[in-house]
Parts: sequence; C-alpha cells; structure tokens
Amino acid sequence: MVAAAAILPELATQLVVPVAAAVGIAFAVLQWVLVSKVKVAPEPRGEGGSAAGGGAGAGGKDGASEYLIEEEEGLNDHNVVLKCAEIQTAISEGATSFLFTEYKYAGGFMTVFAVLIFVFLGSIEGFSTKSQPCHYSVGKTCKPALANAAFSTIAFVLGAVTSLVSGFLGMKIATYANARTTLEARKGVGKAFITAFRSGAVMGFLLAASGLFVLYVAINLFGLYYGDDWEGLFEAITGYGLGGSSMALFGRVGGGIYTKAADVGADLVGKVERNIPEDDPRNPAVIADNVGDNVGDIAGMGSDLFGSYAESSCAALVVASISSFGINHQFTPMMYPLLISSVGIIACLITTLFATDFFEVKEVDQIEPALKKQLIISTAVMTVGIALVSWLGLPYTFTIFNFGAQKTVHSWQLFLCVAVGLWAGLVIGFITEYYTSNAYSPVQDVADSCRTGAATNVIFGLALGYKSVIIPIFAIAFSIFLSFSLAAMYGVAVAALGMLSTIATGLAIDAYGPISDNAGGIAEMAGMSHRIRERTDALDAAGNTTAAIGKGFAIGSAALVSLALFGAFVSRAGITTVDVLTPNVFIGLLVGAMLPYWFSAMTMKSVGSAALKMVEEVRRQFNTIPGLMEGTAKPDYATCVKISTDASIKEMIPPGALVMLTPLIVGTFFGVETLSGVLAGALVSGVQIAISASNTGGAWDNAKKYIEAGASEHAKSLGPKGSDCHKAAVIGDTIGDPLKDTSGPSLNILIKLMAVESLVFAPFFATYGGILFKYL
Amino acid sequence: MVAAAAILPELATQLVVPVAAAVGIAFAVLQWVLVSKVKVAPEPRGEGGSAAGGGAGAGGKDGASEYLIEEEEGLNDHNVVLKCAEIQTAISEGATSFLFTEYKYAGGFMTVFAVLIFVFLGSIEGFSTKSQPCHYSVGKTCKPALANAAFSTIAFVLGAVTSLVSGFLGMKIATYANARTTLEARKGVGKAFITAFRSGAVMGFLLAASGLFVLYVAINLFGLYYGDDWEGLFEAITGYGLGGSSMALFGRVGGGIYTKAADVGADLVGKVERNIPEDDPRNPAVIADNVGDNVGDIAGMGSDLFGSYAESSCAALVVASISSFGINHQFTPMMYPLLISSVGIIACLITTLFATDFFEVKEVDQIEPALKKQLIISTAVMTVGIALVSWLGLPYTFTIFNFGAQKTVHSWQLFLCVAVGLWAGLVIGFITEYYTSNAYSPVQDVADSCRTGAATNVIFGLALGYKSVIIPIFAIAFSIFLSFSLAAMYGVAVAALGMLSTIATGLAIDAYGPISDNAGGIAEMAGMSHRIRERTDALDAAGNTTAAIGKGFAIGSAALVSLALFGAFVSRAGITTVDVLTPNVFIGLLVGAMLPYWFSAMTMKSVGSAALKMVEEVRRQFNTIPGLMEGTAKPDYATCVKISTDASIKEMIPPGALVMLTPLIVGTFFGVETLSGVLAGALVSGVQIAISASNTGGAWDNAKKYIEAGASEHAKSLGPKGSDCHKAAVIGDTIGDPLKDTSGPSLNILIKLMAVESLVFAPFFATYGGILFKYL
Repeated sequence: MVAAAAILPELATQLVVPVAAAVGIAFAVLQWVLVSKVKVAPEPRGEGGSAAGGGAGAGGKDGASEYLIEEEEGLNDHNVVLKCAEIQTAISEGATSFLFTEYKYAGGFMTVFAVLIFVFLGSIEGFSTKSQPCHYSVGKTCKPALANAAFSTIAFVLGAVTSLVSGFLGMKIATYANARTTLEARKGVGKAFITAFRSGAVMGFLLAASGLFVLYVAINLFGLYYGDDWEGLFEAITGYGLGGSSMALFGRVGGGIYTKAADVGADLVGKVERNIPEDDPRNPAVIADNVGDNVGDIAGMGSDLFGSYAESSCAALVVASISSFGINHQFTPMMYPLLISSVGIIACLITTLFATDFFEVKEVDQIEPALKKQLIISTAVMTVGIALVSWLGLPYTFTIFNFGAQKTVHSWQLFLCVAVGLWAGLVIGFITEYYTSNAYSPVQDVADSCRTGAATNVIFGLALGYKSVIIPIFAIAFSIFLSFSLAAMYGVAVAALGMLSTIATGLAIDAYGPISDNAGGIAEMAGMSHRIRERTDALDAAGNTTAAIGKGFAIGSAALVSLALFGAFVSRAGITTVDVLTPNVFIGLLVGAMLPYWFSAMTMKSVGSAALKMVEEVRRQFNTIPGLMEGTAKPDYATCVKISTDASIKEMIPPGALVMLTPLIVGTFFGVETLSGVLAGALVSGVQIAISASNTGGAWDNAKKYIEAGASEHAKSLGPKGSDCHKAAVIGDTIGDPLKDTSGPSLNILIKLMAVESLVFAPFFATYGGILFKYL
Repeated sequence: MVAAAAILPELATQLVVPVAAAVGIAFAVLQWVLVSKVKVAPEPRGEGGSAAGGGAGAGGKDGASEYLIEEEEGLNDHNVVLKCAEIQTAISEGATSFLFTEYKYAGGFMTVFAVLIFVFLGSIEGFSTKSQPCHYSVGKTCKPALANAAFSTIAFVLGAVTSLVSGFLGMKIATYANARTTLEARKGVGKAFITAFRSGAVMGFLLAASGLFVLYVAINLFGLYYGDDWEGLFEAITGYGLGGSSMALFGRVGGGIYTKAADVGADLVGKVERNIPEDDPRNPAVIADNVGDNVGDIAGMGSDLFGSYAESSCAALVVASISSFGINHQFTPMMYPLLISSVGIIACLITTLFATDFFEVKEVDQIEPALKKQLIISTAVMTVGIALVSWLGLPYTFTIFNFGAQKTVHSWQLFLCVAVGLWAGLVIGFITEYYTSNAYSPVQDVADSCRTGAATNVIFGLALGYKSVIIPIFAIAFSIFLSFSLAAMYGVAVAALGMLSTIATGLAIDAYGPISDNAGGIAEMAGMSHRIRERTDALDAAGNTTAAIGKGFAIGSAALVSLALFGAFVSRAGITTVDVLTPNVFIGLLVGAMLPYWFSAMTMKSVGSAALKMVEEVRRQFNTIPGLMEGTAKPDYATCVKISTDASIKEMIPPGALVMLTPLIVGTFFGVETLSGVLAGALVSGVQIAISASNTGGAWDNAKKYIEAGASEHAKSLGPKGSDCHKAAVIGDTIGDPLKDTSGPSLNILIKLMAVESLVFAPFFATYGGILFKYL
C-alpha cells in the first residue's frame, strides 16, 4: 500500500518535538528565576538566612539593591522575614521527608513490579530469544518476547522515575514559593498573585516538557534496537504509561491520605477542642497540614496528570503502530500524539504571558477571572494549534486499527477528535465551577440549608454532587461518541490528549491553589498583620475553585484515557467484541462497577484512622508540653509530620493492593473477557463517584467559606463564624475533606491504573489467562 | 422435534397453580380473622366504638365474652381503647386519602400509558389486522400486531390494577392491625408479636397469591384468543410486568417521598424546635408520619416486590415461549415459573406456622431470632420445593433460547438456577443484617465515631455503606454467572424468581416492621404506660433490622429481574450482541451509569422540599393554634396529611418522568444498541448505590438506637439521650432517612421499570428506533 505522506518531513518532526520540550523547560527555568528574585533572607549575605531558606540558595546570590521596595507596612521587619524563612524550611523539610519515605516504598514497589513485568511478559514464549512472526503486520518478523519484556520493563522504570522526579521538583518549587508569596503579599495582591502563579507555571511546564522529552528520547533509543519492528517498539513503550501511573498511586492515594489526615487531625484538636484558629503555630500538626497541601495537591495532582498524559500518549501510539502510520512506517503521523503535546507547550506558554505580562491583576476580584481566562485562552489558542498539527502532521487519508478491521479516517476528522476532547475539558471545568463556586446558586442553596442544621446541609450537598455529574457525563459521552465514531480507539486516545494538551496551564492554575493556601498559613504562623492574611485568603479562595476545576479536568481526562487504554488492551489481547450478553463479561461489569465503592470505603477509612492517630499525638503534646498553649514553648512539629508520613504509607497499602492485584487476579483466573467487563464497569461507575465526591466536597468547603466571608445579605443572615449555621457548614466541610481530596481523586488512579496494567500484561493474559474457566 | 414431556400432566398443572393461589388467599383470610379477634371497640355494641374503628367493622360482630382477658394493667381502661380506635381511624383515613389521591394520578398515568402502548405497538405494522409470519417459530403464522397491541395494553392494565389493589389491601390490613398490636402489647410481648406478624402475613400471602392468580387467569384467557401462537401470547403478557412495575413507581417513589417528608418534617419542628418526644399527639405531623409508614413501607414495598415478581415471571415466560417449551407447546414446563411461585406459597405457609403456632415468642430477645428463623426455614423448605417442581415440572432435557441460538439444558441445571437465586437472597439478607444491626461491630464502630462528632459519624457511615456492597455484589454476580452459564437469560429470570419465591414470608416480615412502628406511635399518642411503649419499641427494633433485610432482598431481586428483562428485551429486539467496543453501546453504558445519580439527586431534593413544606405547616399550627403545646387544643392533622400527599405526588413527577421517558427517548432517537448500553449501565451502577444508600441509612438509624438503648458498657459510654454523641448520631439518622427510605429503594424501580418498558416497546424500537443515527 502506497500511503500519502504528511506535509511535515520526518526531520522536521525530529526537531519540533525536542525543541518544544526544551522551550518548555527553559520557560520553566525562567519563571523560577523570576520567582527567586523575591528574597526570604533578611540580610543578603547573612548566614542565618541562607541556611533557613530551604530551596532559596539560588536566590541568595543576587544583589540587595532592588530587593524590597518599601511600598507598605512591615517591609523592613526583618523578624517577619526570618520567621517566614524558618516556617518555609520546616514545611520544605517535612515534604522532603515524606517524599523520600514514599520513594523508598515506591522504589521497592517499582523493583518488584519491574521483575513481575519482566517475568510475566518474558514467560509468554518461554523467554525465547528468537524473533517471532508479528501479530498484526502479517508476514513480517518481530523482535523476540524476551526483548519486549526487557524494554517494557525499562520503559516502566523510565515512566516511574520521570513521574517521581516531576513530583519532587513540583513540590520543591511549591515549598520554595509559598513564603515568597506571603512576603510579596505585603506589597499588594497583584505581586503575590504573580509569584504564586509563576511558581505554578514552573511546575506545569517542567512536568509537561519533561514528560514529552523522556518519551521522545525513549522512542528514539528503543528504535535503535527495534528498527523496523514498530509493533514491538510501541508495545514496549506502554510500560512508560504504567510506570507513570503506578507512581501516581503513591502520589494521589498516599499523598491524599497524608494531607487529609493532617488537616482533619489538626482541626479536630485545634479548632474543636482547643479553640485556636486554623494555622495557629501552637498547633503541633500545623506544619504537617501545610506539608500535606504540597504532597497531596501538588505532587499528587502532578503525578496523576502526568500519568494521564503518559498513558494517553502510549494508548494512542500502540493503536497507531498497528494502523497505517505504523504499518507504512510514517514517522511524522506516528508522532502525531507527541506533536499535539509539543504545540500544547507553546500554546500554554503564550497563555501564561496573558496572566503574568500582558495583563496585571490589581484587585482581589480580578484573580478568579484572570485564572478562568487562562483556561479559555489556552483552549482557544490550542484549537488553532491542533488544526495546524492535523494539517501538517497527518496525510489527508489513512487507516486506523478498529478491533480487527482497518477504518479509513481523514485528517480533519482527527482534528475534530482532539478538539472535542479539548473543549469537553473546558465544559467540564466550567460546570465544576458552577457547582462548587459560591458565586452561584447551587452552593448558596447548600449554605442556606444549614439553617435547619447539619443533616439538611449533608442531604443537599450529596444531592448537589449527584446532580453535578449529569452535564460532565454528557460532555464525556459526546466526546467519546464523536471520537470513537470517527477514529475508533485512536480517536478516543487523541481526544484524551486534547483534553490534556493544555496540561501546563492546567497544572499552573492547579498548583497556584496550594501555594496560596500555604502562603496564608505562613502569614498566620509568622504573626503577620490581618491585612496580609486577607490578601492571601483572597488568593486561596480563587485557588479553591480552580482546584475543583482541576479535579474535574483530571477526572474527565482519566475517563477518556481509561477508555483509550481499555481499547488498546482489547486490541492487544486480540479480543474483537466485548459482549455484555455473555456471563463472563456481565459479571465483570457488575463487579467492576462495585470496585470504586470498595476502594472508596478503604480510602475513607484510611483517612479516618490516620486522622485518629494524629489526634492522639496532638492531644499528647498539648497535655505534656508545658507552655505550649501559652505560646512560650514550641510544639514538636516533626513527630506529627512523621505520624502523617507513616500512617499514609501504611494506610495506602490495602487500596493500592486492590488496584494492582485486581487486573492480575481477574486476568489470570477469569480471563480477558471478564477483565474487559471489570475495566468497563469500573470506568463507567468510578467516574460518577469521582465527580460527585469531588464536587460535593468542594461545595461544602465553599458553602462554609460563603458563610464566613459574609459578602452578601444572604450570607450575612447565615453567619457569622461560630453561629449555628456556620457550625453545620463546618460539619459538611469536614465530611467533604476526604471525599474531595482523597477518595474522589484517587478513583482516577483506580480506573487508569487497572486499565494500563491490563494493557501491559495483555499478552500474558491472552496466552495463559482464564485458568479457572479452562479447568472448570 | 419430538420433545420429552414433563412428569406432571397439563391437567395437573392447570389445577396446582390456581389451587395454590386459592390456598394462599384462604390462609391470608384466616390470618385476618385471627387478627380481627382483637377488639378495638370498648363496648361491643357501642355507637362510638364501631364508628371509630376504621376497618374494625368485621370484628364488631363477635361476642364480648373472651374479648379482653384481664392479665395485666390497663386492660379495662375503656378510654385507652377508645383513644387507640380514634388514632387508628385517623391513620387509616390519612392513608386511604393518600392512596386515593395517588390512584387518581396513577389512573391518569395508566390511561395515558395504555394509549401509548397501544399506539406504539399497534403502529408497527400500520395497525394491521392481518396475521403475520412469526419471528422465531419459522414457517408459522402469528397473530396481527393490532391484537398484540390490544392484549399488551390489557395485560398492562391488569398488572397495574392488581398492584394497586394489593397495595391498598396491604395498607388496609396494616392500619387495621396497628392499634390491635398496641392493645395486645398490654398482655405481653408475645401476643403483640403474633398480632403484628399475622397481619404482615395477610399482606404477604394476599399479594403473592393474587399476583399468581391474576397472571394465571390472564394467560388462560389470552390463550383463548391466541391459541397456538404462544410467541404472541407471552409477548402480550409482558404488559403485566410493566403494569405492576409502573404502579410501583407511584408506591415506592411517591410513598417514599411521603413518608420521609412527614418524618423529617415532624422531627425538625417537634424534636428539634419544640423539644417534644417522637410520636407526641401534640405534633400536627404525627398522624402524617404514621400514615407514611403505611404508604411508604407497606404499600410501597408491596408494589415494588409485586412488580419484581410480575416482571421476573414475564421475563421467564417470554424467553420460554421461544424456547423448546413454547415451540413444542409443552404447557407444564412453560408454566414452570408459575409452578415455582405456587410451591413458594405453600412453603411460606408452612414457614409461617413456625412463627405463629409451632413456637411461641415469650421474651423480647426472642423476636429477632424468630424473624431470622423465618428466612432460614422458608429457604430450606423452598429448596426442597424447587427440587420437586424441577423434577416433576420439566422434561429432563430441553432447549432455551440464547440470543439467536438454542442452548440445551437439563432439568437439574434449572434447579440450580432457581436455588442459587434463593440462597443468594439469604446471603444478601444476612450480610445486610451484619452491616445494619447494632449487634455487630460495623454499626458499633459508626456509633463510636460519634465521639468526635457528626462529621466522623457521616464519614464512617458512608464508608460502611460502600463496604457493605462488596459481598452482596459477589453473591449476585455468582448467581448471575451460574444461572446465565447454565440456562442463559431464562436461567437469570428463574434465579430472580427463586429469590422471590419466598416473597410471602419476606413481605410478612417486612410489613411486620411498620405495623410495630405504628403500634409504638399509637401507644405514645394514646398515653399508655411506659411499659407498653417499651414492648412496642422492642418489636420495632427487630423490625428495623428486618426492614433492612427486606430492602436487601428487594434490591438483589431487582438486579436479577432487570438483567432478565434486559435479556428478554435484547431477544425481542433481535439483538445478538451488545458490544461495549462500539460507540453507541459505550456511551449508553456511561450515561446509563449516570442515571441513578441523577435520579437520586432528584428524590433527595424532593424529600428536602416536601419536608420543608411540612415544617412550615407544623410551625404555623404551633404558632396559631392556642393551647396546642399545652395539650388543651387538638392540632389539625388532616392539613399535614394533605400537605404530605400533595407534595409527594408533585415531587415524584420529575424522577418519574426521568424513568419513564429515558427508554422512550433513547430507544426512539438512539436505537436499541444504545438503549441496551443504558440499561446495562443503569443496572450495574444503580444496584451499588441502592445497596450502599440503604445500608448507610440503616446503620445510622441503628447506631442512634444503640446509643439510646445503652445496652452495653460501650453504648452507655456514648449516651445517654441528649449527649453530644447522641446528637451526632441523630444527625446521621436524619441524613439516612431519605437515603434508606426514598432514594435507595427507589432505584429498584429505576432499573426495573426502564428494563420492562424497553421490553414492552422493543418491537417498536427495533422497527422505528434510532432515528438520530439514521438521518446523521
């Protein structure tokens, strides 16, 4: 078959991808440098300062001349700066200590799982080193099973390490930026906003660019061995997705348990029993709470989205390798997923400038619109980018593998697939905002229901969460229908990539939230004026809504990614139909739909148990350290950090085991049909719970904030802080904590990880799986 | 094909079924007579008494000689009896008024829907009156489409009317028995137990027997016209299932909203604002609350289970009609589903004697074991019954229609199908008990979590509900796998029938709960001694657990029934595969899995809004009626009853419309494949929410009761009533009310009704459906 070529020559593609990645990394470094201009050392050459600032070493070299413009009060108060530096160090050290402990376990897990992959995949042809006939490219010979096992294992390790490094760097910049945001807040809300946003951008661009770059390098290096055998090459590359996603298990689930155990534990003793405000430095768990924001919302969210990105790329590549792109060895169209991501980085770069350079945030009420504009601008710019890539990077006509047959597709159809994913993400984002922001009636209704107590608050909150599922599901369903109809599972995979193409901006907005949250905590702990705290609170409030939007994106993309992985799994396992009208598939569907409930029960109980341990330690310190309540003695922050760390690692084992073992057990004992049912069931059921849990929790949080802020007549009639209504709202908020930050978002991992694991092990299951049915 | 015959001749079958039904009805009447021996009229010939006792007319004729044995205190207090009679009348009138209002709307709905069925089904061949070639019996001629439309419509009306009459009679006997139970409680807990249980049995046997009888008569009468055309005959009979189930929509959803609106409304003003005890006669909503127990838990549950029974019978019959039973016109095996139900009535009759005659309940702690024994005995006896029917009623070998092919099945395999359903029901029952009874650790843990407040109570309660899904789903999955593998969708249908074969006992136990609840309310309102109230409370506590078990049964059977209906729908629509790997099916699955959330959001909000209206009215009465709080003036009960009635009817329209319109819209616009996906998605997702919502609510209720009763050291450490722990538990209980009594159980209706509606309209959708795809 003579295939039409893409306009873009192979050499250009070989340049565009790494250059885009390099530009992304350079932009991230530039933002870092700009953030580092804010000094957290009171004396430029002082010993204490540079030792205190955790990641502040780089900033210490600059001259002192322009370093703190005296615009407002407290700018020359060196004690405040010193205090901020000290708190920042404590948070940074806590986060580092958690991540290193996590990495120890993650490393062990990685080793075991790498061996498992090698053994399972290698065993298929009895660890044969002989070349074998290809599955799909009839008449050709492909590389031996042992090579595939080895390269899959390497790809797995690469994905895992990239995920860990990205998460670590994200956490580093976040703990580097939090105190700087606090200090900038003295100069005005605009300065603080820019600092927090730039720091978020460092994380976003670093992650998007390094994910793309490592994948690109891996493909080229693996290609040296695989040569002509693209089928084997891209099968091996799927390990990259599994590696990325399995580390996200640690980040999302472990980090999610950490952050909420610390948060709930700190609140239950501090706010409820001791009646001291949030973020009070006397609370021994306050540092753990602030660490939690960084490990849960920054490192966790980052690894989750990185996993989605890696998985959707791998799903697209593996399907492409057995489509005309792969069969005809057309490099440029084969790299279409990576080209989309490359253009995404550039589009996000332009978008970022709108927030940091083209416009300036001056007032508090400009923050939220500025962040929302980021979403709209990036989507609009990216739409043009997709059109460009689809025009230049694809032949006009090609074929896509569609469960045993080849389907003819045009380049504009693929444009539609990517674009529908991109725009569906925007729709989900705005719907999430509607249901979780207290600017609209749903959250205000929930706040109003607090009049009749906590029970009605919970009933209305749950109902809101259920209701908020409707439109996102229709948006996802529409994207799936269109992309699936136009280009089979390849279409779904690139739709997922479309939703994730603006990941750099999405992550920037997302990381902005916890950084502002931390900034507020540091202001409180450093004893800064009420005015500063008000500014950081305003930053934080906007961050709350964007966090909910970020979760909406993460879930929506997880749904598309899982389906794409599911499709790739089915293709690779050689299944052509997954018929609900067979008992194997149907019970898989039923049990799969149950798994998110099982998983949520575990994660919610984990938070409860871990929080209980924290409560005991905080109580112990208040009871045994004399002068703690009076502020004359310092609490032992480190022990609380250690408790949260140990508890979260321990508590993540049962849910983690459920996720990792289910595909292995089902695939081995019940076979690929039942496993297909399980994957589909978990996907369609999990996405609903994930959305409703996140939005219910977000709504309760903002209903409480609505009453606290008292910005309208209605809100005032419900408040003030401490009123019966407010107490009812606080109960809802506490219930929502594990829902929105642990069990809800963790479900992304459940559905994605089971799917990618099935994909990687598909050849094994197809060969040896279903032993229960074989012997019954 | 010469087919092997069953041992039981046709004539015997024609006798066994109606005789079993007649025995069931006679037994119900006998129990009624026994209950009526308790008199609620103080003077046998007194005018006031006989006017007061609502349904007590029948009892008024008996002599006064043995009528109240003086065993204990207060037996001769005529005022108490008079008061009970008065309250009973009020409850009975309230329930009757609600049901008549409901029936008015149900009647309107029935008329419209009957027309719709006739028009949709009749239009297929252009209202042709000419015979047409059969779909499945190749070479034969079947009756014209117009006849099928007419008979389907008649069957629909028959099913609807049977459901309404059964619900009405159940409610009548319940409101007839409640005051009698109160009065018997004066003589001891054993007497009260027997009265309540016998009354429940009236309901159970009446419903099971009349459902069977009407179906039997309809088949025989329709047969007069259809003659040889069994395919058409049993297709028309499916209307019976739709009729039964659509009335269950009114019973379960309308009744569920009614009961919780009244309950929550009464509590929010009475307990919280006015600080008066539950069931206090000064509370204007107290009668509405007691009415609610009857219309929600008795009439609603009855119509739900009747619907399941009718649907699973119809699903089995329609598949059988195109299997060898139908093709070869073997009457006895064709009637296998009805034979199972016939034997079920006899098995339940024997079981009932164990509770009422063979053993006697003397102590409070014997109540719950006595009720649980009912479940075990009925299951054991019925297992023998199934074996007998399978041996006598089936040929040893036959074929079952399996999506286009015929599958060979043996009679013992069908025995296994029915038996696995029956035993799965028992497993679900006991697991439900484990998670909702405060005798075990899960509920005690939830109670313990109240120490740290309402938030942890809610988190632990939600986690408990999620966790409680696991084993029931495995039980259902195992039943499905076995029955599906052995006998395709026919196997699933008879497995559902197996679970429902002990429906008479199940309903007796279930109806016992609200009757005892009412009895307690009447004791309180009549100002009877604390001792009486304690006895009725003990009856009620046991009833709470059995109510949860009943809900477990209802959901489990709904899952099996829906799958059987789904299978019948797919067969009738001529679909041979429902492939998840097609966009139509997958988006159906995803959107279907979302529907339970949408539906639950609606029903929960409905309860909230209706309760709010009740709160306003109760407040109004307390504020405007002088002397109400002092007990010198009587509240206006009727207005509250009317408000609950009107609100529940109005509020059930949106969720009802969602259920009824979804299959019509999806089938017409998106076609049968997408509709298959929607049905499968709603089924696998809905069953999880239904189980978790019911169990979470049940657990919160019993955690509260656990603290209130203070029966152990642990429980005492959490109490007493009014402590902080108890307050937290009350919040959980209130949240659980709509979950366990409205939104959870209503989901049964959602999944069943959508499936049976699709089944009835299948020929229309198959012919004209999917217009959106046809023109795109």
